[in-house]
Order: sequence, then C-alpha cells, then structure tokens
Amino acid sequence: MIELIIQEDAVAEGPREIAEIMAAAPDEAWRRVPDEQLLLIDTPEGRIAVELSSVLGQDHVEQIKLLSRAGYYEGLSFYRVIEGFVAQGGDHTDDHPKGKARTSLEAEFEEKLPEGTVFTTLGVRDGYAAEVGFVGGMPAGRDASTGTSWLAHCTGAFAFGRNNGPDTASTEFYITLQPQRYLDRNLTVFGRVLSGMDVVQAAPRGVIDQDPETDDFSERLMIDSFRLAADLPEEERPAYEVMNTESDTFAELIEARKARPSAFFIYRPGHVDLCQMTIPTRTVEAEDN
Amino acid sequence: MIELIIQEDAVAEGPREIAEIMAAAPDEAWRRVPDEQLLLIDTPEGRIAVELSSVLGQDHVEQIKLLSRAGYYEGLSFYRVIEGFVAQGGDHTDDHPKGKARTSLEAEFEEKLPEGTVFTTLGVRDGYAAEVGFVGGMPAGRDASTGTSWLAHCTGAFAFGRNNGPDTASTEFYITLQPQRYLDRNLTVFGRVLSGMDVVQAAPRGVIDQDPETDDFSERLMIDSFRLAADLPEEERPAYEVMNTESDTFAELIEARKARPSAFFIYRPGHVDLCQMTIPTRTVEAEDN
Repeated sequence: MIELIIQEDAVAEGPREIAEIMAAAPDEAWRRVPDEQLLLIDTPEGRIAVELSSVLGQDHVEQIKLLSRAGYYEGLSFYRVIEGFVAQGGDHTDDHPKGKARTSLEAEFEEKLPEGTVFTTLGVRDGYAAEVGFVGGMPAGRDASTGTSWLAHCTGAFAFGRNNGPDTASTEFYITLQPQRYLDRNLTVFGRVLSGMDVVQAAPRGVIDQDPETDDFSERLMIDSFRLAADLPEEERPAYEVMNTESDTFAELIEARKARPSAFFIYRPGHVDLCQMTIPTRTVEAEDN
Repeated sequence: MIELIIQEDAVAEGPREIAEIMAAAPDEAWRRVPDEQLLLIDTPEGRIAVELSSVLGQDHVEQIKLLSRAGYYEGLSFYRVIEGFVAQGGDHTDDHPKGKARTSLEAEFEEKLPEGTVFTTLGVRDGYAAEVGFVGGMPAGRDASTGTSWLAHCTGAFAFGRNNGPDTASTEFYITLQPQRYLDRNLTVFGRVLSGMDVVQAAPRGVIDQDPETDDFSERLMIDSFRLAADLPEEERPAYEVMNTESDTFAELIEARKARPSAFFIYRPGHVDLCQMTIPTRTVEAEDN
C-alpha cells in the first residue's frame, strides 16, 4: 500500500501521462505530410502509406518518384519476406521491361545536414550511434566526429537494398519488420511507414527463386499500385498528419516515455530507445484538406 | 577500391562470419528443449511454439502448465492484438467456465538467480538495464545493486498481463510483436517464442469488446489447442533445439554480430542490441528424438 501512495505522489508531481499530452496537443504540434512526399502502396490486403524523407537520402527519394511515375512497381510484388527481418519488394527477375531507365545510385548512407536543419536529440545513450534523435520527423543517428547524420533502421524504415558495392542500389526496396539498427550507415533509409505495417507484417514469408519454374506466384503479396498522393485526383488524396518532432508536445512525449508516469508502472525505466519512441500519426477527414 | 581491400584484410584477421560459425557448431552447442518446457499453441493459421523458462518466473510457468492441462485455453482466442505492440490471448469475457480454479499470482518481475545459475553477459551498454545477457537461454537483464535478474521483453517474449496491482496476473498471456523493453520488471516474462512468430504477426489486429453484441468473433485468431509437448503422444512431439547460450559457439556469434565481418558491411557497428542477438533455433527430425 505504501508503494501505491508513493506512485500517486510521483504522478502528481511528475510529467503528464501520454494520453493527457496527446489530448492537449495544439494543432501546431502536427504537420501535414506533403502530397509529393506521400507514397501509397496498394495491395490486395490493404494500403501501406510511406512518408518519403524531405532532408536525407534525396537522390533516393528522387529515384523512387521517377519509378513510381513510370508505373515501374505496379504488378510487381514483395518477393523476399523474412520473418523478423525485412519485406523486400520490386522486380526479382532483374529484367523488368520498364526497368531499362533505372540507374544505380551513389550511396547516401550518412550525410552532412543542410544548413539550418534541426536535429532533435533524444538525449539517451545508444549502442549504435554517438547520438540519436529525429531529423525531418524521422528517427536518426548523428556523429559529431564526422559531422554526419543518417535515418535509422527502426521498424517501418523504407530503404533500397543493394549488392555488395556501396553504390549499387537502384529499384529494389525494403521495409524493416523489426528494428535492424546494425544496418544503419550500410544502406540508405529514405522514408518511414506511416500506416499499414499490419499489412506488411501479414505478408507471406519466403524468398522467391529467380527460376520461374520454382516460383510460387500465388503466395506473394502483390503490388497493385504504387503512387505518390500528388499523382492522385485531389479528392482521392489521403491526408496524413504526423506529430512535428520539433514541437514542445513531442519533447514532452519523450519525457513521458522515459518516465512512464502511469500508475500501471511499478518500475519506471528512465529511458526510451530510439525505435521505441513512437511518432504519433493520424489521418484527417477529407474536408480538412 | 582501397576501401574494399581494407575490408578483405579485416575479414581475414577478424572474427568468422555468422554462417561459418553456424556451419561449424558442434552438437554440444545445441540443447534439446525439454518436452515439459515446450508449449504448443495450435491455431487455424499454424503453430506457435514457446519455450517456457526453466529458471525465472517459475510460479508463472507452473500456472500455465496447470491451465494447459485443464484445457483452459482451447477454444479461446487472441482477443487483443495491437500492431507493433502485443498479441494477447485468453478469456476476454472474464467468466470462462473452466476459470474458477485460476488464482492470481505474486509478481516475479525480478528475482535473485538460484545458486550456480549462469548469467552470460552480452558485454554492451544498454539503456534499460545495468547489464544484459542471457539466463537459461533467454534474453535477460541484471542489476548488481539489487542482485536481481529478469527476462527481457524482446520480440516473442511470452508473459502474463495484469491489472494495475503487481500481483494480479492470472491467465491472460501476451506475446510481444516488437521489443518492449520498457515493460521489463513491470510484468513477468516466463517464456520465448521459438517458431511461429509469422503466425502471431499475421493475427488480425483489434481489441475485442467485452460486449458480445459488438464482438466480431469471425476476425480473431482462435486457439484450437494449447498443450505441452509432454502431454502429446511421444511420436507427435516436435523436437526443438536451441543454441546453448553458455556455449563457445554462442560467444563467438555474439562477437560476429558486433563485428559484422561480412564484406557486405561498409560500416561495422561494433555493437549488438540485446533484442537483436538472435538465439539460433532448429527442429530436428523425429527419428532423432
């Protein structure tokens, strides 16, 4: 009983609970994802919505926009889905008829941030990076000794695969099913899944063989369409809002996730992992567009 | 080119790659999961195999064995499945006809290890625990200042839910869909999923209302059977082997996951998270039983 009384005191004096903070968040704490940065992957099992990075990995973002607008991915599939690792999509045969225009990209594994870009630090120690936080609304690492930053492989990271050489990414993308932070600075992450991770998690597992004789086409999650919201008629564009990671509300959420003031917690961690620091996302009604 | 040459030198002198270590693992590096500790949850979508802890959380282990043997979970479901969080199963109505014998358990959130128990340290810094490693083949934390250890909420952790009081767990179990380390020392983890996480990840998301009028029974992942391997006829018992986390092979795997000697890696992390340190698991043919 004494323990419970101490907890209640802690709640009264400590940070607000997450639900309270969210309920009190002002409109300015939210930002609308621009239609040009919103990628919509439609599958028979539902939609996967991805925000493309506006700061890091911009050559990769440009490439996927070109591919999207060429209809490159439509009719392709998630052909390599490994439980607990990644769901990889694109052309597993390497001879897609629309693929002639594709080019390999120079790696954007880590980059100097453009002047004026805010890096919102999480303020915790981390085994994979000197510093962790958020850039352009996405989880990121930073190393002051090199002056570089990179987007992190948390769950739902959107990136291009590559061959053994660093500058070999071209069209095959993957979505991480679990945090894979050891891949940071080894591949270019350039987006983040906003919704539809349930669709990705339910994709049939397997690795499709390049030999069509042994392919099991009936089992793959297919890509019906792969479009930027900007390329849809205006009335069909979904409106996603993501919490601004530079807002006071997000700063307060960081503290609440470290402190866990809810009475449910017996042990309060005083820490939050980068990949555990949820970035709130919501859809708003079409009339608010 | 120079970069590649440096990498090859590093490979030649550094740790072996993961595939090489696995291929060379002696039989003694593996342990058979005892039939008494192997829980098999069969659903229409496939089997989820869980190893029950042999060291920590033993009152919880005893309770789930009793419930399993009473047929308590059969015909129940995963009724609370939240994307990126947990899949919770059991009786959502709180009035299960077989539930009269159930009792609330005292918390086993953190415990002193029995004399002679090995804690295999991972040797990395961690935000959630003073020390992390493995106890009885499962990921765990330890705090020398309290002398206590606990099983960690990595993906596939098997635990009982509870109400607000610490000693309120009884029958409702959950499986984590992602690492949830902030729950460590707040709930009792007493097992780990060995296979079938793809089944859990594909479970329909939702929270079933307690009001039968609004329940959507057609959508839940149902539990057809929930049995210990020891309670099956001998010829039906699957043989799971898990790498012994106290073996030299596992120690070498830890170093390889930190160093990532494969030529694929441009940046080598020099670190591995507790929940990223895969514990190899395999099934062996029935004739080896």
